[in-house]
Amino acid sequence: MFIRNCWYVAAWSHELPAGGIIARSIINEPLAIFRTEDGEIVVMADRCCHRAAPLSMGKLEGNEIRCAYHGFKFDHAGACTEIPGQDNVPAKARVATYPAIERHSWIWVWMGAAEKADPDLIPAACGFDDPRWNLRSGQMDYAANYLLINDNLTDFSHLSYVHVNSFGATEAWARSRPKITRLPRGIRVQRWLKSDDSNLKGVRSGGEELWSSYDFLVPGILLMRSASYDTGTSAALNGGEPGPDVPCHNENFTSQAVTALTDSTSRYFFSWGPRAGEGTDELAEILKGIAIMAFTEDRIIIEAQQRTLDQCQNFDMVLSSADVGPVQFRSVIEQLIKAEGGTARLRL
Amino acid sequence: MFIRNCWYVAAWSHELPAGGIIARSIINEPLAIFRTEDGEIVVMADRCCHRAAPLSMGKLEGNEIRCAYHGFKFDHAGACTEIPGQDNVPAKARVATYPAIERHSWIWVWMGAAEKADPDLIPAACGFDDPRWNLRSGQMDYAANYLLINDNLTDFSHLSYVHVNSFGATEAWARSRPKITRLPRGIRVQRWLKSDDSNLKGVRSGGEELWSSYDFLVPGILLMRSASYDTGTSAALNGGEPGPDVPCHNENFTSQAVTALTDSTSRYFFSWGPRAGEGTDELAEILKGIAIMAFTEDRIIIEAQQRTLDQCQNFDMVLSSADVGPVQFRSVIEQLIKAEGGTARLRL
Amino acid sequence: MFIRNCWYVAAWSHELPAGGIIARSIINEPLAIFRTEDGEIVVMADRCCHRAAPLSMGKLEGNEIRCAYHGFKFDHAGACTEIPGQDNVPAKARVATYPAIERHSWIWVWMGAAEKADPDLIPAACGFDDPRWNLRSGQMDYAANYLLINDNLTDFSHLSYVHVNSFGATEAWARSRPKITRLPRGIRVQRWLKSDDSNLKGVRSGGEELWSSYDFLVPGILLMRSASYDTGTSAALNGGEPGPDVPCHNENFTSQAVTALTDSTSRYFFSWGPRAGEGTDELAEILKGIAIMAFTEDRIIIEAQQRTLDQCQNFDMVLSSADVGPVQFRSVIEQLIKAEGGTARLRL
Repeated sequence: MFIRNCWYVAAWSHELPAGGIIARSIINEPLAIFRTEDGEIVVMADRCCHRAAPLSMGKLEGNEIRCAYHGFKFDHAGACTEIPGQDNVPAKARVATYPAIERHSWIWVWMGAAEKADPDLIPAACGFDDPRWNLRSGQMDYAANYLLINDNLTDFSHLSYVHVNSFGATEAWARSRPKITRLPRGIRVQRWLKSDDSNLKGVRSGGEELWSSYDFLVPGILLMRSASYDTGTSAALNGGEPGPDVPCHNENFTSQAVTALTDSTSRYFFSWGPRAGEGTDELAEILKGIAIMAFTEDRIIIEAQQRTLDQCQNFDMVLSSADVGPVQFRSVIEQLIKAEGGTARLRL
Repeated sequence: MFIRNCWYVAAWSHELPAGGIIARSIINEPLAIFRTEDGEIVVMADRCCHRAAPLSMGKLEGNEIRCAYHGFKFDHAGACTEIPGQDNVPAKARVATYPAIERHSWIWVWMGAAEKADPDLIPAACGFDDPRWNLRSGQMDYAANYLLINDNLTDFSHLSYVHVNSFGATEAWARSRPKITRLPRGIRVQRWLKSDDSNLKGVRSGGEELWSSYDFLVPGILLMRSASYDTGTSAALNGGEPGPDVPCHNENFTSQAVTALTDSTSRYFFSWGPRAGEGTDELAEILKGIAIMAFTEDRIIIEAQQRTLDQCQNFDMVLSSADVGPVQFRSVIEQLIKAEGGTARLRL
Repeated sequence: MFIRNCWYVAAWSHELPAGGIIARSIINEPLAIFRTEDGEIVVMADRCCHRAAPLSMGKLEGNEIRCAYHGFKFDHAGACTEIPGQDNVPAKARVATYPAIERHSWIWVWMGAAEKADPDLIPAACGFDDPRWNLRSGQMDYAANYLLINDNLTDFSHLSYVHVNSFGATEAWARSRPKITRLPRGIRVQRWLKSDDSNLKGVRSGGEELWSSYDFLVPGILLMRSASYDTGTSAALNGGEPGPDVPCHNENFTSQAVTALTDSTSRYFFSWGPRAGEGTDELAEILKGIAIMAFTEDRIIIEAQQRTLDQCQNFDMVLSSADVGPVQFRSVIEQLIKAEGGTARLRL
């Protein structure tokens, strides 16, 4: 149960040098991803139309790709341009291609109807070339359905239990409820926490207030800005969002992308870092270390959750008031799938 | 196809220290097993009612267990006592619990209707604290359905072929037929064998007669006493059971439990040892070594049998006169499942 | 979807010494294979009729095999001759047996109706005792359905792409089309190639013409003779087959057998070598090395193809003019299955 008319993060830009070919599945569809000689991204079904050999095992010849098995050659639009030893190439000899855009250091692929592939729907992630942030990155593979990872990322009440060691989170994360706003293709999650309650180990000092605000957008893109403010700021703002003129410390930004590879496997891409500036390399490394530790904690519990659900077909879930984020985001996905004419029952 | 109203051996008592949590599946049901501060055993479904995270990954707080994911807390009766950040806990927020009793060094769990959990139905196994026996123990995991292990344990004709190396068994085991008596929840299997025909390597000398008698009780509990008697004893007793006043040698006792973890996996717990007394430690170790060797021989053939049956859906079995035990015991299980309102077709 | 009335290669003769037992599945049927004291091959279902233990784990007693579990004994015709401890053996106590013949260094098993097992249907492979050839051999296991391997072997256009490194094949293999002749139980594939276009690395010199001719017979037996001829030979013969009186070089022969072990696994047996004679050992070793390298190249692409097809249930294949061989051979198999009363839809 996946949205098709949606940009999925397929890879980091730097995973694909000129002349390289990436084999990657997205929403169960095996894809071959490469660049034209101009550096444009080409994404096609990783399955030769002849005998289904993976095109990603083939080789690039200019802007075309030749199958490793019997040498069928395809152009960047998926049309077969050569069948060795045969004069005519039938029109049906072609493979599906998918719109793709390189932006924010990620390769985005549109898995739905090509004519609806609107570049403006690509979320405003921050890439390594963004002058505002000093970013580090990582990635992780999950033996779990993407929805369980989305549930995790849309409800931070788990920080108090899962991330005690990494983030040093206290129970405040579980006891407070953020403000959640519905967006056209996702939700916005915002909250103030006392710094003593929200200690980010090795990063923040006491006596301050933490603001965190993130958008979570389909299919599973998290874009979050966090920063510390002087005590009293939240009260002065009546709990509202601090503007760019309010002085802050330890400002940082993270872009994260959950991509469903298959029904039961997912890849999680993330970058994180402090505001750019002299002397922030150490902090950037600290944040990266924390992220890897924390996301490993998530992976362990989520994969265990997946195994339990696999054993128990009719699990009747009891929701809490912290589930507003997961419930709303699943609803966004369900509505978009239905709008495409698909059927989905994703409710918690 | 399992009996539910039945005590299953879940673990050795010593597997569960104070403060520990065991994750174990019984008849396909994942369980979290821990102790209250008074040492009482608590067994609950290993699946938080919130998002199905395994409770066995959580932590104990007094007599309660807190989920590792979002911090839901449950008492020993399975009732949720806290949802962090939420004042009210809905009544349906609970997980199933199972009656459990610690007895004979084993933790027994009742997988059926709680009101029918009669402690008197726990078989009279011998634990390490039993002064009569000097016991050693072990366990083994099977990639096989529990019924195949029960079949093995209810028909010792296989000793002559499977256990030549371990028990030193001759063909007498295959050629004699024991007396089999139906019990309310199992069968009793008894026989006399000439010692020359029933050599237990390293344990018995010749010129004697071996008596062995075991009860095999649901779901798969074997309780066996064996001993050697002077030649002529069986004739003097007219083939009957020797009383406690008849002098014997090499008396030993074994308790064994087959627990179905899932449809295709089982755990086998066993203890064995000679009558307690000075100088029996060496004999106890010898018996343990023989047991491990013999039960490994069983495991190899039974797992092979399981793989063959998996490949052959409609196997039409040819029974022999040695199959009275397996046939009767499967019939006991089948009748008990039917008495619970379940359906089963376990016949050989 | 397999032919049953057909000889399958189960093993090399040298795999089965006197007293040995081979466990092997053919077309999903587990088999126990052994020799009588006279050296005759016996093939029976690897499943005791009592409790389905694999007979291949048992032991040979003269011309009979005794089950390792409860000691049932079976003669070479599959009849149970002894049930330990029981006087009468019921007539239904037997296991299926299969006709088998040892020929050309292979053990052939007939998986269909015994009365139709015609030894003349065994293809004319060359064994190690054939004085004409200096043969070396090897084998390889595939995680793929046998049809994909047959497709590979009935269309050599892949040599130009898969075997550049091993055979040093040029594009000529992909651009020429062989002459294909239908045989009663297979196809014949023949062609002339200019030597410059068909270089077999380390074997041929330039300035010659290569003739290759092979029969591919059910269920997947390839028998190929190749040789180099002086330039102009093909024209002088009007493209026809060179007779034994035409001088040639580098003549070599290969026998290959694809055996479906299960739906998703196959074993590939092969021998290859030059015409026998003084000083051909080095060439025989070179050909073996090339074969292992080339067949590994095939295995990599075919197993990838299988994985892709497994992910894509309704793959709509686009055929090329090089697919005459695969299409015709699948048609042969399909017709033979239908002639047996089976149903098959193997068309590409």
